[in-house]
Amino acid sequence: MSEDHMRHATGRVGPVDGTRSPRYAGLPTFARLPRREDVPDFDIAVLGVPFDAGVTYRPGARFGPSAIRAASRLLRPYNPAQDVSPFEVAQVVDAGDVDANPFDIAQALDAISGAASELIGPGRLLVALGGDHTISLPLLRALYAAHGPIALVHFDAHLDTWDTYFGAPCTHGTPFRRAAEEGLVAKGHSAHVGIRGPLYDRRDLLDDAELGFTCIHAKDLDVIGVPGVVERIRAAVGDRPVHVSIDIDVLDPAFAPGTGTPEAGGLTSRELLAILRGMAGLRLVGADVVEVAPAYDHAEVTAVAAAHLAYDLLSLLAVRA
Amino acid sequence: MSEDHMRHATGRVGPVDGTRSPRYAGLPTFARLPRREDVPDFDIAVLGVPFDAGVTYRPGARFGPSAIRAASRLLRPYNPAQDVSPFEVAQVVDAGDVDANPFDIAQALDAISGAASELIGPGRLLVALGGDHTISLPLLRALYAAHGPIALVHFDAHLDTWDTYFGAPCTHGTPFRRAAEEGLVAKGHSAHVGIRGPLYDRRDLLDDAELGFTCIHAKDLDVIGVPGVVERIRAAVGDRPVHVSIDIDVLDPAFAPGTGTPEAGGLTSRELLAILRGMAGLRLVGADVVEVAPAYDHAEVTAVAAAHLAYDLLSLLAVRA
Amino acid sequence: MSEDHMRHATGRVGPVDGTRSPRYAGLPTFARLPRREDVPDFDIAVLGVPFDAGVTYRPGARFGPSAIRAASRLLRPYNPAQDVSPFEVAQVVDAGDVDANPFDIAQALDAISGAASELIGPGRLLVALGGDHTISLPLLRALYAAHGPIALVHFDAHLDTWDTYFGAPCTHGTPFRRAAEEGLVAKGHSAHVGIRGPLYDRRDLLDDAELGFTCIHAKDLDVIGVPGVVERIRAAVGDRPVHVSIDIDVLDPAFAPGTGTPEAGGLTSRELLAILRGMAGLRLVGADVVEVAPAYDHAEVTAVAAAHLAYDLLSLLAVRA
Amino acid sequence: MSEDHMRHATGRVGPVDGTRSPRYAGLPTFARLPRREDVPDFDIAVLGVPFDAGVTYRPGARFGPSAIRAASRLLRPYNPAQDVSPFEVAQVVDAGDVDANPFDIAQALDAISGAASELIGPGRLLVALGGDHTISLPLLRALYAAHGPIALVHFDAHLDTWDTYFGAPCTHGTPFRRAAEEGLVAKGHSAHVGIRGPLYDRRDLLDDAELGFTCIHAKDLDVIGVPGVVERIRAAVGDRPVHVSIDIDVLDPAFAPGTGTPEAGGLTSRELLAILRGMAGLRLVGADVVEVAPAYDHAEVTAVAAAHLAYDLLSLLAVRA
Amino acid sequence: MSEDHMRHATGRVGPVDGTRSPRYAGLPTFARLPRREDVPDFDIAVLGVPFDAGVTYRPGARFGPSAIRAASRLLRPYNPAQDVSPFEVAQVVDAGDVDANPFDIAQALDAISGAASELIGPGRLLVALGGDHTISLPLLRALYAAHGPIALVHFDAHLDTWDTYFGAPCTHGTPFRRAAEEGLVAKGHSAHVGIRGPLYDRRDLLDDAELGFTCIHAKDLDVIGVPGVVERIRAAVGDRPVHVSIDIDVLDPAFAPGTGTPEAGGLTSRELLAILRGMAGLRLVGADVVEVAPAYDHAEVTAVAAAHLAYDLLSLLAVRA
Amino acid sequence: MSEDHMRHATGRVGPVDGTRSPRYAGLPTFARLPRREDVPDFDIAVLGVPFDAGVTYRPGARFGPSAIRAASRLLRPYNPAQDVSPFEVAQVVDAGDVDANPFDIAQALDAISGAASELIGPGRLLVALGGDHTISLPLLRALYAAHGPIALVHFDAHLDTWDTYFGAPCTHGTPFRRAAEEGLVAKGHSAHVGIRGPLYDRRDLLDDAELGFTCIHAKDLDVIGVPGVVERIRAAVGDRPVHVSIDIDVLDPAFAPGTGTPEAGGLTSRELLAILRGMAGLRLVGADVVEVAPAYDHAEVTAVAAAHLAYDLLSLLAVRA
Repeated sequence: MSEDHMRHATGRVGPVDGTRSPRYAGLPTFARLPRREDVPDFDIAVLGVPFDAGVTYRPGARFGPSAIRAASRLLRPYNPAQDVSPFEVAQVVDAGDVDANPFDIAQALDAISGAASELIGPGRLLVALGGDHTISLPLLRALYAAHGPIALVHFDAHLDTWDTYFGAPCTHGTPFRRAAEEGLVAKGHSAHVGIRGPLYDRRDLLDDAELGFTCIHAKDLDVIGVPGVVERIRAAVGDRPVHVSIDIDVLDPAFAPGTGTPEAGGLTSRELLAILRGMAGLRLVGADVVEVAPAYDHAEVTAVAAAHLAYDLLSLLAVRA
Repeated sequence: MSEDHMRHATGRVGPVDGTRSPRYAGLPTFARLPRREDVPDFDIAVLGVPFDAGVTYRPGARFGPSAIRAASRLLRPYNPAQDVSPFEVAQVVDAGDVDANPFDIAQALDAISGAASELIGPGRLLVALGGDHTISLPLLRALYAAHGPIALVHFDAHLDTWDTYFGAPCTHGTPFRRAAEEGLVAKGHSAHVGIRGPLYDRRDLLDDAELGFTCIHAKDLDVIGVPGVVERIRAAVGDRPVHVSIDIDVLDPAFAPGTGTPEAGGLTSRELLAILRGMAGLRLVGADVVEVAPAYDHAEVTAVAAAHLAYDLLSLLAVRA
Repeated sequence: MSEDHMRHATGRVGPVDGTRSPRYAGLPTFARLPRREDVPDFDIAVLGVPFDAGVTYRPGARFGPSAIRAASRLLRPYNPAQDVSPFEVAQVVDAGDVDANPFDIAQALDAISGAASELIGPGRLLVALGGDHTISLPLLRALYAAHGPIALVHFDAHLDTWDTYFGAPCTHGTPFRRAAEEGLVAKGHSAHVGIRGPLYDRRDLLDDAELGFTCIHAKDLDVIGVPGVVERIRAAVGDRPVHVSIDIDVLDPAFAPGTGTPEAGGLTSRELLAILRGMAGLRLVGADVVEVAPAYDHAEVTAVAAAHLAYDLLSLLAVRA
Repeated sequence: MSEDHMRHATGRVGPVDGTRSPRYAGLPTFARLPRREDVPDFDIAVLGVPFDAGVTYRPGARFGPSAIRAASRLLRPYNPAQDVSPFEVAQVVDAGDVDANPFDIAQALDAISGAASELIGPGRLLVALGGDHTISLPLLRALYAAHGPIALVHFDAHLDTWDTYFGAPCTHGTPFRRAAEEGLVAKGHSAHVGIRGPLYDRRDLLDDAELGFTCIHAKDLDVIGVPGVVERIRAAVGDRPVHVSIDIDVLDPAFAPGTGTPEAGGLTSRELLAILRGMAGLRLVGADVVEVAPAYDHAEVTAVAAAHLAYDLLSLLAVRA
Repeated sequence: MSEDHMRHATGRVGPVDGTRSPRYAGLPTFARLPRREDVPDFDIAVLGVPFDAGVTYRPGARFGPSAIRAASRLLRPYNPAQDVSPFEVAQVVDAGDVDANPFDIAQALDAISGAASELIGPGRLLVALGGDHTISLPLLRALYAAHGPIALVHFDAHLDTWDTYFGAPCTHGTPFRRAAEEGLVAKGHSAHVGIRGPLYDRRDLLDDAELGFTCIHAKDLDVIGVPGVVERIRAAVGDRPVHVSIDIDVLDPAFAPGTGTPEAGGLTSRELLAILRGMAGLRLVGADVVEVAPAYDHAEVTAVAAAHLAYDLLSLLAVRA
Repeated sequence: MSEDHMRHATGRVGPVDGTRSPRYAGLPTFARLPRREDVPDFDIAVLGVPFDAGVTYRPGARFGPSAIRAASRLLRPYNPAQDVSPFEVAQVVDAGDVDANPFDIAQALDAISGAASELIGPGRLLVALGGDHTISLPLLRALYAAHGPIALVHFDAHLDTWDTYFGAPCTHGTPFRRAAEEGLVAKGHSAHVGIRGPLYDRRDLLDDAELGFTCIHAKDLDVIGVPGVVERIRAAVGDRPVHVSIDIDVLDPAFAPGTGTPEAGGLTSRELLAILRGMAGLRLVGADVVEVAPAYDHAEVTAVAAAHLAYDLLSLLAVRA
């Protein structure tokens, strides 16, 4: 009944110890980490953003944070792929969920950027769990306020730089056009990875290029491989502050059925994890994993992938915190 | 490849003949009926309203109309329970779907009431397929414009007369408070049927009664039975024009898992069908079936129930058309 | 690894003992009973008929026998509702599956009636597990050969006395018209129970009545209750040899989602079990449970219901064997 | 991000306010109630017992507490069926989960009775969420220590008074035989409700009666109705301290597919809720809801039913606390 | 309510505009294209063939056309992978479904070849959506009548050149043996791609080779890669008229669970799309996508893959039309 | 109804002939092979081990053997990838299931090693179907008794060389530490393949290496490819007797959702099959496929993969038998 968190020699409070409390027991904070209010301070906050009023097809990403947290109970504290124990080298906490208005997108975006700003600060980093992709805009607003223009590394089947949809400027198809227009994104130093599937018009690609994005298509992977993708990303972002935004639909629907706008021909989870690990050493300041729609998931396949991706992002951030 | 609709001696065009074209073939209009543009005129229109931006918990009712239509392919043309062939005594058509803005509730409501008004008229009746329960408000606005105050017979686990939610006046929890405030509903002549589950406060019931609704709880069924429920409904509405609004969650989750805010202890589909049939002779002018969320359905159980309910509503309307 | 069947004082071989071999272990014969070839003789045979080439909508009942057998592993040997241990008072065996041609309905029917005839005999009774409802025709042919005209008690949402479908005389919608035409069914002494849902024409009911069937609709249950249904069945069949045919869609889709042509407003499994138990003392000579389509089932809900129904049918038969 | 719990005039801390924080947001404590460590004292504790090493067929009830908590987010604070706001008249808390050893039943039972004893006390009541039915034994041990012999009201398809299984004395099929042997249960003042399905032997019923249990079968409901069941329960328990144990499989598989040993012919959730409400005024001292196996659930149907049952049990307890 | 199709400068009528009518609204024609009867003429017809009476294991492909159409609502009009807007350079229409007899394979094949012949003509191409693989035989008959011997490019886990099955010459395991025997296929210029899994006998491969097929196994991909596969296909077919037949089970079950005879070790959807795109410039005259069995699909994963494959096939055909 | 097994010129009895009895008919022995008691002698036995009391997260592998057998009905007798008809060159039988105590791990392990020992012997090989990974320990005990130290080739996401868990020495996380300690495994000649996902501590890898295992991580595949993996395996095991143990979670959750402790970033089924085939010529003496948990599977994707893996293992063993 009592939950025994691991306490590290570094003084940091780690996850509930899986050898003392079964992994299926207890309240599902991310990776069974302490809540923000349970420790005096933190280096990295995991913030849930249960908001999906910006979706154009299958809704349900509002249940994404709770599904990812439930799946994250399986995570253990040492990451051999990056040879780091992220919860030991940084104090990571679960900061709970933003209360975003489900009926008013503008209000919701303000609540999200407010919550993010409150968590971000000197030596304080943020990983957000969506929610639909609309939420990346307020995150970038908060990050920009703290760090200036951000080099965005955006994993997705879709460009998400469309203009408006049914007259709405802020939906899950538009965050990065708005961000570019607002100058939040470092022009010429950002990249989409995993793009595929039909578009509205050839101009979609041209417009996107004009906004300053490098576009790495899913089919490019077959030619340049994971090392080639990593190289392009590193070349684009350089030493700028980086935000990584992962739309889970960058994975093939086989790996991520639980999402709203699936497109065939996507990445495998092994490819995506390898690309992330190839980004070690970049100046990461934030990350999000979005568009997990649990009603379409099966056996937590999508949520487990999202939890593992968030864990590797936390590992990248932890060594910087 | 060619679809052979039944042509009745009455001159009316019926469904595609299931003995010539298998039921799983062809475009799924409701009950395989002709589209509105395929016949010169109509008596009753079936209108899809794929809108779910008003939901507070599990979304997905935007896919309700397509799911109900797919399930409705199993319907046959003669209704023995009411001893009527609804598509023979009235020209019923599928009027397609309203294009409701998914990001702006007010705009969507206008589009819905506009579409409904355009279909309603002298001798023209409407059955709407939701969508979430928000859509009943614009339907009542259109019906009021045509018929004056409407006696509402509302099947639901929930009252749907709450005030605002997150500041929004029009959501799926509020349509009938708004309707009452706007005078659309005949005060003292409307009823909720199937109410159950926890509320926010004892005052919820008092407020509702003050708005003029008769409240028949699910547990009342155990005492007064279907005949008692029918009697109370008939007593309440009298000979006023009636709109029947069925939130599919009036059924127990066993009968309707595919919905957004399930409550245990609900009606069986046999009970609900019997109550509807008990309403024969009332002055029905419209109906809706809402809150079917297919992502949570299994084997079309919920959609089949919704299709059968819509079919019995059409049968009631057809003899009046 | 060795399977220990219970051996009764009566000399009969019962199911594998669940206290020695876990219920999830071993080959899933029906109720873990011995195979026909494992015992010298038998009183009642359970025969699988994996055939679904006669279906008009959702196929898959070919997997019905294996699904029902898997679900039947949960059955225990004493039936308190009938106060009988069916496998102790009769030697019941699993006779395996008929190899029915999936591409030629006529050939398949011959194979089924052949297999049934081989199992039926003096003191030998048969319970068949479908398969779609087409299979009841060859079963009735075999039963007629052994017993003369059969009083049929037919539980179903549908009449199954339609004429032809796409020119085919023998499908799952026609077995009892063919059976009536062939004189297999005792005219005036058979009944449908649970009928509901739309028909093609009012004449469907008239034709059916002319064929000599008593029709007890699902909605009649609300008026006459289980005792009334039992009374009508008993009045119809008298002391004639009875075959009970249960189309699982007689149950509401909530209780039997795994079937091909679901209709809302059906029976509960408790009602159906009570009706069966009310038939004690009738002269049962055979039974079938059909139309279980496992691809549409969930958590074995449908298969468990079918297994329990078959078990109560076996209990009725066992006291006669 | 901050969770705003309702604060009542009674000084008690209620659930997170659903009008300020969407119901799908935040950590899923039961009914969004405060955790035990968040308030100074409590009247009733909700305790999760994620343990399923005692199951004989489909496992997975170890995930029951988290599934019921997730479904309980839909609960609102006022219970109109009992006309009580349970979280206002009593301080109810979520006490988290017991860390029960998944590999050693005896150790697990000790941990459970220890955790329960620590929560039970003068004016302190307990509702446990299982877990499999094995857990009722340690709960009864703790209750006996506090209250002496307990009148047990046990809702289940199964008697759960079998002796041993594979040599193990404590499994989910044996808790009430052990409890009777240990004298924990008030002999002659306890009842099973909802019993059905095949047994091993006629003697199972006789043995059970000898242990002093009144047995109300599922089929008895068809004769005596809910009022008759309530009357028998009240007659059995009188004014003794009562523990209510609900195995979710007392519901028909249509209402509770997510369980381990389903039996057709069960109760509806409306019947079960009505029976519980009929127990108002009895001297309840504890309750459990067990055998929810989420891997077999669909759309949270089972978990929603379990959450509602727990809520009505809490309402009964709250007026006594 | 009105559906606004895009109207191109070329005079062609494109899909319903997704920016004016949400993608989940309206009747699901393929890619929301106009129906054949809605435009004066067409270049390419998409024809549904809901027929599955030829399957040997899991049935249900009769629901394939409706599932693929539903999933195709997500398609947008510009294909960046082939740099073409297929609905702008060709008038593509949805020609509805063939009414194929579900009980008589021979009659069904005649109906299918009749419907195909009626759609094929000078400058008129066809993409068929199955249905099971039996339907490729009548398609090849129609194509042969128009173009002479056809070079077949056949993606499948299975050879589909078995002889008879249960005496039936035309099933989903035999279309290409029949086609070869009838001379419909250009001997020595056709290829299977993706073959894997157990066979009946070593002779299966020898027989197939004697019929003139090149066989590219799934495991060959590991050696020669996508470029090697493309090269072999191009070498085989040369400049002959090509029909592409895709059995969705060529994909690994992870990518296409919704099919009847799954085999582990298959292609990824990215590999298959890349191979198709490598076929640009070949003389395509027709295509089919078959064996989508929606009852076994999850979250439309299989149907989305099929829709994307059909879209890329249409893109290849459009530049030739 | 009679099952016709293929009878080979070698005198061996093969599977039931799929051209005479449809694959969905009959009792599901593995690959429809004869049972052990149906033939006089055998070369290879397939043994089910339905035991999952050793799992730490999602249970249900007790239903693994029955699910794999059901999926194996699709297997045909000739394996083109290895150019062998395994059931013709060796007499393979289904030896049924071990009756393992679900409540006492030690007793269960004894039953399993006893059953395995009884089947293993001169010229007699064993393939076991789990069950959770705990079962590999008693299998290795039996193999060691027959062959001395065994070179283990272990495919898994996890090392399974942890020490104790909740005080239990034998769980699904510990079999290979126990085996190494007992000297069952040939030190320095065994390998893990597919390792990935978070660990408890860096020391987990060091401890494992000290126990003498070669560790091939999933990410290594991206560098050395299938040929590199095969080379390392062959180098490690040399000509020692080899047991292959496949935890199905070595596959990515996309390929094997139906398992208990999924980890993203795994192998594809094509990679794993290719590695197995690369092991031809090694001195295999046994194999197991474990951790298939059907309650989490979809459309038999996991069970089909497991059945195919077991089939290729049987093919490797058959040429040695």
